[in-house]
Amino acid sequence: MIKTIFDTSLSHTALWAQGLEYFAQLDADSMAGWRRQAQTNRAQELKTIEELAEVTRLKSDILVCIGIGGSYLGHRSVIEALAPSSQTQILYAGNSLSALALEQVLESLQGKDFSLNVISKSGNTLEPDLAFTVLKAALVEKYGEEEAYKRIVATTDVKTGKLRAEASQNGYACLDIPDDVGGRYSVFTPVGLFPLAVAGVDIEAFCAGARASLINDKNIVKYAVARQWLHQNGALIEVLASFEPHLFYLHEWWKQLFGESEGKDHKGIFPASLIYSTDLHSLGQYMQDGARILFETFLEFERPAKVSPALQSLQDLNQIALTATKTAHAKGGLPVLELQVPTLDAKNLGEMMMFFMQACAISAKLSGVNPYDQNGVEAYKNEIKKLR
Amino acid sequence: MIKTIFDTSLSHTALWAQGLEYFAQLDADSMAGWRRQAQTNRAQELKTIEELAEVTRLKSDILVCIGIGGSYLGHRSVIEALAPSSQTQILYAGNSLSALALEQVLESLQGKDFSLNVISKSGNTLEPDLAFTVLKAALVEKYGEEEAYKRIVATTDVKTGKLRAEASQNGYACLDIPDDVGGRYSVFTPVGLFPLAVAGVDIEAFCAGARASLINDKNIVKYAVARQWLHQNGALIEVLASFEPHLFYLHEWWKQLFGESEGKDHKGIFPASLIYSTDLHSLGQYMQDGARILFETFLEFERPAKVSPALQSLQDLNQIALTATKTAHAKGGLPVLELQVPTLDAKNLGEMMMFFMQACAISAKLSGVNPYDQNGVEAYKNEIKKLR
Repeated sequence: MIKTIFDTSLSHTALWAQGLEYFAQLDADSMAGWRRQAQTNRAQELKTIEELAEVTRLKSDILVCIGIGGSYLGHRSVIEALAPSSQTQILYAGNSLSALALEQVLESLQGKDFSLNVISKSGNTLEPDLAFTVLKAALVEKYGEEEAYKRIVATTDVKTGKLRAEASQNGYACLDIPDDVGGRYSVFTPVGLFPLAVAGVDIEAFCAGARASLINDKNIVKYAVARQWLHQNGALIEVLASFEPHLFYLHEWWKQLFGESEGKDHKGIFPASLIYSTDLHSLGQYMQDGARILFETFLEFERPAKVSPALQSLQDLNQIALTATKTAHAKGGLPVLELQVPTLDAKNLGEMMMFFMQACAISAKLSGVNPYDQNGVEAYKNEIKKLR
Repeated sequence: MIKTIFDTSLSHTALWAQGLEYFAQLDADSMAGWRRQAQTNRAQELKTIEELAEVTRLKSDILVCIGIGGSYLGHRSVIEALAPSSQTQILYAGNSLSALALEQVLESLQGKDFSLNVISKSGNTLEPDLAFTVLKAALVEKYGEEEAYKRIVATTDVKTGKLRAEASQNGYACLDIPDDVGGRYSVFTPVGLFPLAVAGVDIEAFCAGARASLINDKNIVKYAVARQWLHQNGALIEVLASFEPHLFYLHEWWKQLFGESEGKDHKGIFPASLIYSTDLHSLGQYMQDGARILFETFLEFERPAKVSPALQSLQDLNQIALTATKTAHAKGGLPVLELQVPTLDAKNLGEMMMFFMQACAISAKLSGVNPYDQNGVEAYKNEIKKLR
């Protein structure tokens, strides 16, 4: 269970009663498919995904996952956090317009057997669409059309969209993105589960963690209410802090989840990320003694990843540094929240990500915005259309 | 020349006159060695560094740079931005307390010839000190003491400190960190120049860029004044935005430079970093329509890195996306600053980094804090001492 450790006097505020009410109503929202899905028996669905992953693994040194935002941050978070052992390496493409980044991926594929997982609800998103065109051509060049098409898994809208139509025509294997789940809430759909399965993550344990989180009401509401209470009292930035470089993408996922859910109508806590002790030698000075416009949420794993015995004392020292940093920053006048996760494994990461998704939906509602839309993302796309 | 493109009406403000005055006084500060150094003839010093780099390159598949904060962010920025070709790969250690990160470095060294560059003014900083102990043991195990000590370059205080003493005793090659240059301003000292030379970056061009920046007064002061003017008018966060993933560490260097220089006395603009178009699908929503508590500085390269002809149209589109994003965000009510750099090469990066260092010192002085201290960084170290 994820524990939240901070002042509980918030339970007397109006925010607390409102938070509990929003928690109780979560499933009623038309876009809360991510939470409703976690309550169903998914055994058959997971088995199908596992089987497709096994087929992919057997014939691929590399699986390239093509997607941007919510279509890649969730699974990349978990894969980098757990570093599971699989004979198939996962690479990422279509998450920028950088030609250099795509060139690097193409170079990595030289002499390797590879497959593609293109992840896009509509198939119209610029970045993955362009990368898919280039990588599909490389696949066809290497294997010929027939075999190439057998090496493409399309994770896309159940019925409509350009990618679904292409998949039907060419016979790609398809996985469905449910209509009632948005990108940043999609890690427990095939968007996240297929890459995780190929990478060797135990997706049954991951989904079991999500299910376990559903009853964690007090802690979920506590985190949501504490954020909004601090915000009402002058905190404008939330810094998520943890102590392992391999949690970098987990922080990136968290930033999208909260930033895209809450940053609208000229509102929203600005989400920032620091990885210590690295960043204690960068923004540590600011955290200790800069403008008091932020609060800090420490993400802690009581049992972090296993390391070789020779380096155990270093890892112990890293845990001491965590405690020391919390103390130092609290003494510096920074409001400090603590989220404690028992073990760094698939089940606990599943529970933690579902914890954050629920807390985020409640927190957005407490601040009076819709947790599920993101109309602002269209603005730069519209400007591009005018310039091309 | 770095151009700043935004409203010039700031030249009528009191900040402008004050900024020009601080610019004229930069060299007078006791810790402004970084700026005084740029005005000297460094030909002999650079030749010495180049020669030591050549010796290191010839016998090393890998050079591990051991340092944290200002002891690694500067050179890592430039190396990742330029991706120079060298037979010697640069790896990084001692920039966290993560046992997993150190384990990965040790694994990468298996079967390879390697050398160490330990970078620490005192030799007492916890993270590099611990990593150096582990990596030195690996070096001695592989080569024996005599040869191992010939494979260590210590970049450290000119005369005093634990590392200087050890270097003298064991006969490591030594490079000096001047007394009057702090960590985050040290990229043009041997701290940055030796790793850059080993990586194949033209350090003469890099330093020539720094020298060229010294006369760029109007643009430097404009950037410093614009930041503080926006801050006085309600902007609490500065987001540095660019469009290439390989500029990630340049943004990290910039964050330390400004955050550690300005984040004190409960003051300071909070520095944040976004890499587009990736982050348009993450914090793009917030930038477009979230709380109006920030301004955005676009870092643009008119001629970015060369790519293969097949991907040229993708790179062109990336430049279009930059223009489109600036327009969209300005329409969304975000104050937008633009910094234009002609070419992504060593000379222009040198000019740009010196531009930022000068602007940072002026900006910190305009907000009434000392650009050169960082007393807050000690706080967590003191708490660790109580717990060990």
